[in-house]
Amino acid sequence: MNILNIIEKKRDKKELSKDEIEFFIKEYTAGNIPDYQASALIMAIYLNGMNSRETSDLTMAMANSGETLDLSDISDIIIDKHSTGGVGDKITIILMPIIAALGIPVAKMSGRGLGFTGGTADKLESIPGYKVDLSIEEFKQNVKDIGISLITSSLNLAPADKKIYALRDTISCVSSIPLIASSIMSKKIAAGANKILIDLTCGSGAFMKNILSAIILAKTMVKIGDNLNKEVRCVLTNMDEPVGKAVGNQLEIIEAVNALKGNMPKDIEEITYALAEQILLMAGKATTQEEANLLIKETISSGKAFEKFKELVKKQGGDVSYIEDLSKFKNAKYIVPVPAKRSGTVVKIKTELIGKTSSFIGAGRINKTDKIDYEAGIIINKKINDYAKKDEPIAYIYTNQENKIEEAIKQIQDSFVLLNIKRIKRRTVIQTIK
Amino acid sequence: MNILNIIEKKRDKKELSKDEIEFFIKEYTAGNIPDYQASALIMAIYLNGMNSRETSDLTMAMANSGETLDLSDISDIIIDKHSTGGVGDKITIILMPIIAALGIPVAKMSGRGLGFTGGTADKLESIPGYKVDLSIEEFKQNVKDIGISLITSSLNLAPADKKIYALRDTISCVSSIPLIASSIMSKKIAAGANKILIDLTCGSGAFMKNILSAIILAKTMVKIGDNLNKEVRCVLTNMDEPVGKAVGNQLEIIEAVNALKGNMPKDIEEITYALAEQILLMAGKATTQEEANLLIKETISSGKAFEKFKELVKKQGGDVSYIEDLSKFKNAKYIVPVPAKRSGTVVKIKTELIGKTSSFIGAGRINKTDKIDYEAGIIINKKINDYAKKDEPIAYIYTNQENKIEEAIKQIQDSFVLLNIKRIKRRTVIQTIK
Repeated sequence: MNILNIIEKKRDKKELSKDEIEFFIKEYTAGNIPDYQASALIMAIYLNGMNSRETSDLTMAMANSGETLDLSDISDIIIDKHSTGGVGDKITIILMPIIAALGIPVAKMSGRGLGFTGGTADKLESIPGYKVDLSIEEFKQNVKDIGISLITSSLNLAPADKKIYALRDTISCVSSIPLIASSIMSKKIAAGANKILIDLTCGSGAFMKNILSAIILAKTMVKIGDNLNKEVRCVLTNMDEPVGKAVGNQLEIIEAVNALKGNMPKDIEEITYALAEQILLMAGKATTQEEANLLIKETISSGKAFEKFKELVKKQGGDVSYIEDLSKFKNAKYIVPVPAKRSGTVVKIKTELIGKTSSFIGAGRINKTDKIDYEAGIIINKKINDYAKKDEPIAYIYTNQENKIEEAIKQIQDSFVLLNIKRIKRRTVIQTIK
Repeated sequence: MNILNIIEKKRDKKELSKDEIEFFIKEYTAGNIPDYQASALIMAIYLNGMNSRETSDLTMAMANSGETLDLSDISDIIIDKHSTGGVGDKITIILMPIIAALGIPVAKMSGRGLGFTGGTADKLESIPGYKVDLSIEEFKQNVKDIGISLITSSLNLAPADKKIYALRDTISCVSSIPLIASSIMSKKIAAGANKILIDLTCGSGAFMKNILSAIILAKTMVKIGDNLNKEVRCVLTNMDEPVGKAVGNQLEIIEAVNALKGNMPKDIEEITYALAEQILLMAGKATTQEEANLLIKETISSGKAFEKFKELVKKQGGDVSYIEDLSKFKNAKYIVPVPAKRSGTVVKIKTELIGKTSSFIGAGRINKTDKIDYEAGIIINKKINDYAKKDEPIAYIYTNQENKIEEAIKQIQDSFVLLNIKRIKRRTVIQTIK
């Protein structure tokens, strides 16, 4: 077998065999195939596609390219949730304690933020003392003890995916359905999941800008699941505005805690319920969506979900007093309202620009080694279909860097499109694909 | 301008601007764009194509990527001839003296052999004393003095083409019409030509295996010429068997000298006349093909062509006594007939395999630094449509390496397909495209 023949086959729209895909992944990960050959193959895959069998084989080859996590001693059913990313997305922090409180084990690894998106691991670290870098043994023990652990991964999971993703990013080959699908799925499978729920975000703040591509991606992942004997469901959610109101680590933790206590902005409520319902159905804890819905409602209103979160924070070394009394979180030095430039209904929020502005004022990383200011962020005061009068605050900036305020105000004003119309049609949860 | 946007445009089947193409060529040649990005762009070009404007811009960008030769002080009309390669192709050595004898200046640079094809520079070097590595000043002076010089290039002509060609070879992207067309044309333009004749070989011993692709390539190059104000003509010739009978450096020189004296195997005659006619027409030395044909005939039969070749050899330091008395060339130690395995008409010769066998017994290079044995080679005794009785010699092996004879016999026998049919239809010169 040789890489030239493999490139040639895909160049000529032929199907690659399982062996050929495994050969490529193994040798590329080992450094025996140079980037320029991988690059040609990836462009050929981008342009000529891969069928579901090839995509499944690619997924497994990448999943098996490094360390893998075996969670079968915890439960037969290992559920993982993945979001394709967005701005202000604190759903994992709300959803997972609810799920754990309902008796479904949660052993979840999350990433850190980069560019315009935040990361769950960073958000959790804004709780004083919370440790995200547990050993695998501690991680598993915590799940056994209290049914939940949320950490960041110390394992070398799917290194082939990391290497290919980095390459795709430098050769304009990110937006390919088989490559995105296999990338997402390989990491979840390497992390030990056999039931996978994807929050597939689409819109201006997401990776998938349009719904049609998102549906194709969702169907591709469900099909990969079928091929690999994993249950996969996708909930398409709208990311045409930030999730909830808070963007920025500590601000999002505060919003998440309030949500766990039952105070959810409407979009957070819709997304959380939609995802939680699918997880309960996958885990066999409910047989209908209505039944699942009632179970979730009860878990929140009874305080069980909030209690589970406190248990989690305590177990991972976090100072629970902050969670019990949110006013203990120290505010950023500057809290500055951003006035609307005109009166009108918010019809569009350039979500990616909100994410970038949040990073710019300290909440995120431009480079991997940047330090995060947990206190920094943005509170969105007017969401889509809200009416704002001229000069009324559309958002508030939280920052410790005075010199960035002026530019941040400008960027946020640029992010909001206000028009003299009554409202636009939109749904927060678009569709479930299974 | 940035390479990511350029890759993205071609990935999405959009047209690249002249500036974008120049940016890519300049920065890639300078090493500012890494191979893996060039690789992705080249695969996108391979799969999504380039229109004639883009291909012309690519040609000029590559032609201007290094040194260029200015021959305008020699003549207004600078004609260059290029062959897309084959086995036993000594046409340049026959054609160019004829052209020069007819008063058209010939300043031609040729390459060395690699793999299964020989190189004109190597063939000329098999004449004792002949120097192919003249300085540009000597080269031009020779053309001014005697109307002809045949050398190998010491200039860094079209380095972008060299770099891209080497990359294409490692990523299965050789057989792309716009990339082949711009590669050929850029070298000829950098070498100072304004009228270019391409001997476009097709068949089992050529790069283009089928006639339809060859016609498309020819039309692409003629169109590039139109766009760049250069006259381009292509003669499609059949390379389904070696050209003439000799394969190997010294053997080919002997065959070329005999041809210049008027003893031409039929295929050499057809190809030489077809090419020479087009050159005379391009140079305005004849107004019809018939007129050109008569001029060529006269130049050969009068001995002028042969005299011009002797003049060339002498001027470049070669020992003319070898040309005057071909028996002075020392034969290889072993001359071994290859018997036909069965009786029949030759219907096919695996020409590439003949070329490889010739290299294998010493006539060529497998690696760039290999030394050539000028005496080694193969004489084809039965060409297509010749009848051979079982055990009658289909070819003769000339080699100094006894240990390679057995394998060489086997390979040559494998190259010949003999069948009980009368003859197959074929033409040596297929078509002229201008």
